[in-house]
Amino acid sequence: MRLSRSFLPTLKETPADAQIVSHRLMLRAGLVRQTSSGIYAWLPAGLRVLRNIAQIVREEQDAVGAQEVLMPTLQSAELWKRSGRYDAYGPEMLRIKDRHERDLLYGPTNEEMITDLFGQSVKSYRELPQMLYHIQWKFRDEVRPRFGVMRGREFLMKDAYSFDLDHAGAVASYHRMMLAYLRTFQRLGVKAIPMVADTGPIGGDLSHEFIILAPTGESGVFYDGAFEDQDWLSEPVDIADRGSLGGFFQRMTSFYAATDEKHDDTAWAGVPAGRRREGRGIEVGHIFYFGTKYTASMGITVSGPDGQPVTPEMGSYGIGVSRLVGAIIEASHDEAGIVWPESVAPFKGVVINLKPGDAACDALCERLYGAAPQQMLYDDRADRAGVKFNDADLMGHPWQFVVGPRGAVSGMVELKCRATGEKREVSADEAFAQIAAWN
Amino acid sequence: MRLSRSFLPTLKETPADAQIVSHRLMLRAGLVRQTSSGIYAWLPAGLRVLRNIAQIVREEQDAVGAQEVLMPTLQSAELWKRSGRYDAYGPEMLRIKDRHERDLLYGPTNEEMITDLFGQSVKSYRELPQMLYHIQWKFRDEVRPRFGVMRGREFLMKDAYSFDLDHAGAVASYHRMMLAYLRTFQRLGVKAIPMVADTGPIGGDLSHEFIILAPTGESGVFYDGAFEDQDWLSEPVDIADRGSLGGFFQRMTSFYAATDEKHDDTAWAGVPAGRRREGRGIEVGHIFYFGTKYTASMGITVSGPDGQPVTPEMGSYGIGVSRLVGAIIEASHDEAGIVWPESVAPFKGVVINLKPGDAACDALCERLYGAAPQQMLYDDRADRAGVKFNDADLMGHPWQFVVGPRGAVSGMVELKCRATGEKREVSADEAFAQIAAWN
Repeated sequence: MRLSRSFLPTLKETPADAQIVSHRLMLRAGLVRQTSSGIYAWLPAGLRVLRNIAQIVREEQDAVGAQEVLMPTLQSAELWKRSGRYDAYGPEMLRIKDRHERDLLYGPTNEEMITDLFGQSVKSYRELPQMLYHIQWKFRDEVRPRFGVMRGREFLMKDAYSFDLDHAGAVASYHRMMLAYLRTFQRLGVKAIPMVADTGPIGGDLSHEFIILAPTGESGVFYDGAFEDQDWLSEPVDIADRGSLGGFFQRMTSFYAATDEKHDDTAWAGVPAGRRREGRGIEVGHIFYFGTKYTASMGITVSGPDGQPVTPEMGSYGIGVSRLVGAIIEASHDEAGIVWPESVAPFKGVVINLKPGDAACDALCERLYGAAPQQMLYDDRADRAGVKFNDADLMGHPWQFVVGPRGAVSGMVELKCRATGEKREVSADEAFAQIAAWN
Repeated sequence: MRLSRSFLPTLKETPADAQIVSHRLMLRAGLVRQTSSGIYAWLPAGLRVLRNIAQIVREEQDAVGAQEVLMPTLQSAELWKRSGRYDAYGPEMLRIKDRHERDLLYGPTNEEMITDLFGQSVKSYRELPQMLYHIQWKFRDEVRPRFGVMRGREFLMKDAYSFDLDHAGAVASYHRMMLAYLRTFQRLGVKAIPMVADTGPIGGDLSHEFIILAPTGESGVFYDGAFEDQDWLSEPVDIADRGSLGGFFQRMTSFYAATDEKHDDTAWAGVPAGRRREGRGIEVGHIFYFGTKYTASMGITVSGPDGQPVTPEMGSYGIGVSRLVGAIIEASHDEAGIVWPESVAPFKGVVINLKPGDAACDALCERLYGAAPQQMLYDDRADRAGVKFNDADLMGHPWQFVVGPRGAVSGMVELKCRATGEKREVSADEAFAQIAAWN
């Protein structure tokens, strides 16, 4: 994309009302604009990040056998009355009346609807297990929306739901989802640690939050450094084998990890002193086993192997897709701006033309841009070099290809890595090799 | 995807409440389920079609220089008060109060919001033209929702908006969008003819509807057969050249084409008798030039070349993405079910295993399925052959690879083309060549 023709409005000033760094940087880098309280429009660069994240989430859901559907944003109140949650849900649920005075609501989550869709179609134990997910906008009417997309009202969430014949099946589905989540966060370029969360009246150990480490995070976290001392995901897991899944789950949850709310001094004392890590973190995912809570209350059964009706066991699995945009920035930025992991960056690189109008500069820049026009931003503006360098650092493109008139004549490019700050003079051929490696 | 493990629930019975063929087939083929009046959940096969259509729309918008953004579903009433439309819009607008009693609405369209976003960021004529689009769910509270996704309440629309410095620029943007639309519909595998539509108080000839020909269409249409006698899109158009764009527009609108509402007997008499075509059609797109209607009412200007403020000229351009799923089925089906164009089909092919459990059948089927697991459905169910044939025809996969025990031993496959009904015995190698051609 040519910056001179694009809708990528950066801001020089720091917006006064943005309290946290990701919110400030998302506004300054032109990723989003607020359209009403807690509701945002995604501009081209922001939408690219959002879609990159959603696509990685999707691929890893598919890889463990989940199937994508798309449920609507508006739901009938009737459905929520069947589960008993319509009256129980507080003022965060946005309740709506249509022109016929029928009660609708903007879905804050989809347990009821997916359970109803499942029940309409799945009739036999032979069709189990089923894992269904969607990536759809939700609404929670927060009393005080803040922190930009981190605590917005309209937000994009991936929510998955599993249906199994029995408890052992539900446990295997839960393990599969934990695998998908850890792979997802690894590909997103962030460290996300599963931490035991409240299970409420159901009990057991099948509720985990995934916390991204970020110095500005909302919660304090305590964890065993052994978790990050090894690439646990490089060990093969057979998702069709419950034993293999169970072993994986055992490994990943054998290390101490807790938010300050659940911190246990006695257990912490058992972690070798050299491996004790303290920090702060942001919740970006939550997986939860809840058994027959919805299938039972909504009267959903399938016929079992003996012909008798069986009430399926469920779990639900959420990832905050729009929240992740902010969370990744909290985890990966510096004084100058965003430092995007390559997998989610809106553009993998930027070509900075230091002298538009100079024939050699223009020619080399066009060639570099033309090598990957979908993944490259071309700063062809007539602005000063300083403005371009600042915008490139602010927007956080992983690679900067700086072309000046002297270098252009001799076919040399200054290649800067945003993450390390390292700059090197490279030949045009080396620059093209860097670009070719993106595909 | 393996059918035995998938969430693709077909129905044998014809749903009683579905009045038109696309609605019946979408329910029977397991593409959608209604969750409340005029609101649908998209099951895996339906979502695949919806996303295939959206991706083609996106690529052709990008190809003419439009940039994708994503505006939220909920909008502030304040924005609509600025343009004067809040009170003017009828009961089809879903009006909502949040927990603080602030007025929101579920966006039926986005002229106000995009104009506001544009005005916040674009300050100079040098940044024009701009074309922005998004693909987002909209809501119109139809008094009697019907015809499935063809006239639903929550629907997916692509809406684009152009901003130009003057009338001539706006005309060029309009021409570019007409090009994008014709390319889009051609890739979708349907015939869509641009027909002059009402311009209201603005006047001029810059409002066109795009009508897909379908025998069950809602409108009668009359058009000059010369429109379809040639592949007009094969002639090169330079989207940076206004003369080239104007010539293209001239060619595409020089043939008589009108819905029954706008039919003109005198002009019709001027079409050579042998080229007069009558039929029925469904509106799937609308492009519209409206000048400064919103920029003026909302007080948006940019600084012009002489430093004086200029009010930009706008157009808007819609495609009904979810409606197209139904419209394509109306245009492409037979007694047995859907006949998907390859570009939008949920799966390009299906492998039908006539004898699961037979070693040779299973082995050949697995190889065929394994050649394109993302694009192939594998009917590995234990059902009778007739059930599988019926479901394959109903779901409308372009290619059926039928594997029986005798053929499997000799490495032969029956290959059926859904569109023509042609069946041929082919070697496994020929079958693999067919699959390889998909990529």
